[in-house]
Amino acid sequence: MLLACMLSLISAAQQTPSVQEQVRAYRVAHEREIAGEFVRLLALPNRATDTADIQRNADLIQSMLEKRGVKVRLLRMPGAPPVIIGELLTPGARSTIGIYAHYDGQPTDPSQWTSPPFSPVVREPSGKQIDWEKGANLNPEWRIYARSASDDKAPIEATMAALDALRASNTPPSVNVKFMFEGEEEAGSVHLSDILKDNPDALDADIWLLCDGPVHQSRRMQVDFGARGETDLEITVYGPARPLHSGHYGNWAPNPIVLLTHLIDSIRDMNGKILVPGFYDDARPLTETEKQTLAQTPAADEQLKQELAIRAPEGDGVPLAEQILKPALNVRGIQAGYVGSQAANVISTEAKASIDFRLVPDQTPNNVREKIEHHIRSQGFFIVHEDPDMAIRRAHAHVVKLEWGSGYPAYRAEISNARAQSVVRAIEAATGNPVIQVVSLGGSIPMYLFQGKNHIPVIGVPIANHDNNQHAADENLRLQNLWDAVQVYAAIFTEFNASGEPRSPVGH
Amino acid sequence: MLLACMLSLISAAQQTPSVQEQVRAYRVAHEREIAGEFVRLLALPNRATDTADIQRNADLIQSMLEKRGVKVRLLRMPGAPPVIIGELLTPGARSTIGIYAHYDGQPTDPSQWTSPPFSPVVREPSGKQIDWEKGANLNPEWRIYARSASDDKAPIEATMAALDALRASNTPPSVNVKFMFEGEEEAGSVHLSDILKDNPDALDADIWLLCDGPVHQSRRMQVDFGARGETDLEITVYGPARPLHSGHYGNWAPNPIVLLTHLIDSIRDMNGKILVPGFYDDARPLTETEKQTLAQTPAADEQLKQELAIRAPEGDGVPLAEQILKPALNVRGIQAGYVGSQAANVISTEAKASIDFRLVPDQTPNNVREKIEHHIRSQGFFIVHEDPDMAIRRAHAHVVKLEWGSGYPAYRAEISNARAQSVVRAIEAATGNPVIQVVSLGGSIPMYLFQGKNHIPVIGVPIANHDNNQHAADENLRLQNLWDAVQVYAAIFTEFNASGEPRSPVGH
Repeated sequence: MLLACMLSLISAAQQTPSVQEQVRAYRVAHEREIAGEFVRLLALPNRATDTADIQRNADLIQSMLEKRGVKVRLLRMPGAPPVIIGELLTPGARSTIGIYAHYDGQPTDPSQWTSPPFSPVVREPSGKQIDWEKGANLNPEWRIYARSASDDKAPIEATMAALDALRASNTPPSVNVKFMFEGEEEAGSVHLSDILKDNPDALDADIWLLCDGPVHQSRRMQVDFGARGETDLEITVYGPARPLHSGHYGNWAPNPIVLLTHLIDSIRDMNGKILVPGFYDDARPLTETEKQTLAQTPAADEQLKQELAIRAPEGDGVPLAEQILKPALNVRGIQAGYVGSQAANVISTEAKASIDFRLVPDQTPNNVREKIEHHIRSQGFFIVHEDPDMAIRRAHAHVVKLEWGSGYPAYRAEISNARAQSVVRAIEAATGNPVIQVVSLGGSIPMYLFQGKNHIPVIGVPIANHDNNQHAADENLRLQNLWDAVQVYAAIFTEFNASGEPRSPVGH
Repeated sequence: MLLACMLSLISAAQQTPSVQEQVRAYRVAHEREIAGEFVRLLALPNRATDTADIQRNADLIQSMLEKRGVKVRLLRMPGAPPVIIGELLTPGARSTIGIYAHYDGQPTDPSQWTSPPFSPVVREPSGKQIDWEKGANLNPEWRIYARSASDDKAPIEATMAALDALRASNTPPSVNVKFMFEGEEEAGSVHLSDILKDNPDALDADIWLLCDGPVHQSRRMQVDFGARGETDLEITVYGPARPLHSGHYGNWAPNPIVLLTHLIDSIRDMNGKILVPGFYDDARPLTETEKQTLAQTPAADEQLKQELAIRAPEGDGVPLAEQILKPALNVRGIQAGYVGSQAANVISTEAKASIDFRLVPDQTPNNVREKIEHHIRSQGFFIVHEDPDMAIRRAHAHVVKLEWGSGYPAYRAEISNARAQSVVRAIEAATGNPVIQVVSLGGSIPMYLFQGKNHIPVIGVPIANHDNNQHAADENLRLQNLWDAVQVYAAIFTEFNASGEPRSPVGH
């Protein structure tokens, strides 16, 4: 009796596998094909400022979309990489999901990479390179190494594979899907705002999912209800007009490195605190819902401290999840003279630092700029925004050149929004695990742009592994994260319900 | 009568031109030949660590010496560039002058040079390159651009030309001349001490002239009665074990750049003052003679401030000449992450700084090291001298790697020493101008090594222009300085008197 019952259950399952099961079966059968298409996309250099490279990326992505029956148009503006808009209409669908990702990547320094950034390779956890196109299964712990493997070409490939899997299982999406693939995100999305102003219908959707950034450090899926804004600053301070012998002029000619280190130290302490008066005044306090959501966010601090060899994090004991809800200042680079075997006994003519700021509501790039410049002036510096001439350098004790990037503000969605919660439920259906709901991503994506005039909810649905070396050398994507993403997008495309009601009972 | 008298004077002058006049005439007639030999020497790359390059320099210098009848031997030690010893004996001479220079140069970064560092070119003050091998006269304001043009191959060429000029005028030196040309000075003269211990007779002389460094900023000749010692330090501080996205981890993961800037600021202020407790305790106060000599040193501060576009020098108003008699700390390089167009929103794994210290009597590299390490420890850092492993980085809040160079102490001669003052008078005879007597060079040369067991006086006789970009890109030598140096060496070789008595009345 028991056996008969079990056989009957198995038979029933075999007869009517769920959409999720069919998607999984499709993926398992097509892993090399999916990885192969992904590798072709990753092999294209994609710095936003390299026009010809960017166009090659756009061309390939357009063909990938069109192969899936998606109608494509490119939104162009002089000097900007094209914004790729794709529309897949589903007969009878009453709502539209917008999927955003970007196809440009951060600058690379190939000398720092184990393998060239645009020659994608697969390596096992030991670091050994795998000839992945041969052999049997792909081990899901293997990773693909290439610039933008995680940030942010992975969602492009995963959504394409999800569409393929749904088609193979004869399950059309329940919604219209609108794609927006940007080519200038890592360069600060300088033109996106204007392009969207010229093409406001590009934003028409019931919700926007911004697919960028990493999942939680526990490897569980997370949904981000906001993102910090950003702006950036290049600082140059000046020493003598020509390089000087440090013996003959040392402790008389001003050392620009020391001027710079003192200036930096006056702006930020070792604990992450920004010392500029009034800097935190514009930071909006958390709502009660946000505080509750934050309290439920699992802490990964101890795991990360171990993994990253950090004994004492900045923030004086405040957990990471809370620290990233504050404004932040990161000194991302500093450069003057030479170190190590190239060091020479010279007083440099100038010293440079590069800073990125992370903004929270209701900071704006402009008021950050005003406060920082006011502070730098109060430290006795004469500020210029172009190279100072000799007359300026002779006239002022300390001259500093400040070059600001453009930047954009932060964004936070309403966490309880019904459409957003429908996406959360679809992801939970796909993964069988509760989604970690995050008040705001620490990183920056121009979420604020997507809300449009109608205040459409905008949420982040990241899929990359957290340990992906994003923005740095040896950027990578863990294969399991790519496979999970295929499941997740397939679930969202079939389960989303704009009214917030679950479409179908969830078996998990 | 007047006319007859004048004719007679002119005739007398024509019949018996002075040695100085003959040397000048020889130089004027052979400028292209001298410059040509110099350019061949400058075309040889000469970084101390490049063994084959260094040997090519030593070979050429040996042949240059032997061409002048100087007997040459090379002092060797495994891993060290050869020390070239040359001896030119003068029949009947009762004293010996030692001439030291070095033939190695500082590292170069060709990307910073207007023309390649080892392809010597001549440029006029406007920067225009001159085809100097053709045409009529060489303008003495033209400069030769190449690594080591001033520091320190110029004295090698100038002494050779001085010997040629004396031979052409049938005036043998009045002294024996001993040459020592080192090949490792810019790498800290690491082996020189041991080589001289093995070959103590190499130091036998009545006085050593160390020919390195620049003349006074007024372009007048100077004699240095001392030099600062030196040591150097490479500092590495650590952030997270892998590069992190500054948005997702900013103001939680420790930023190593900020740790480094705070550490530097705790060591040195913007005024050149070293803040390490007790750092100045070992600095010997100036003697009365040194104070008087310092008071007579002409100040070039206002000219330099104009030339170097410096509004407010370090030192709080203390003149340059006095500042360089103090211990000094120069941050010569700092490096982490990227700036400018290469900047990426990353928290770096480490940050590096490179420091050179200038020592005065009675500081030693060892006690500087002890005091700095004690201070760094007091700032909460855990010090290692090799790369720290993950266990060390997990165990300590702030880890710093300190890599010390070897270094050597300062030296000061007795200013009133008779032999030293004889050299001063010979230079005055050659130039017709009072010599600027300097208590101590700001820069470092291993003067202390040359005094030997007998405390032979050691003085510095620099010949390069002060504005020579020494140690940096576009290093150069002004031709007039080369011509002056030929006169000066010829005068020293013929006028020096170990008893301190002038050999002949000086007409100037």
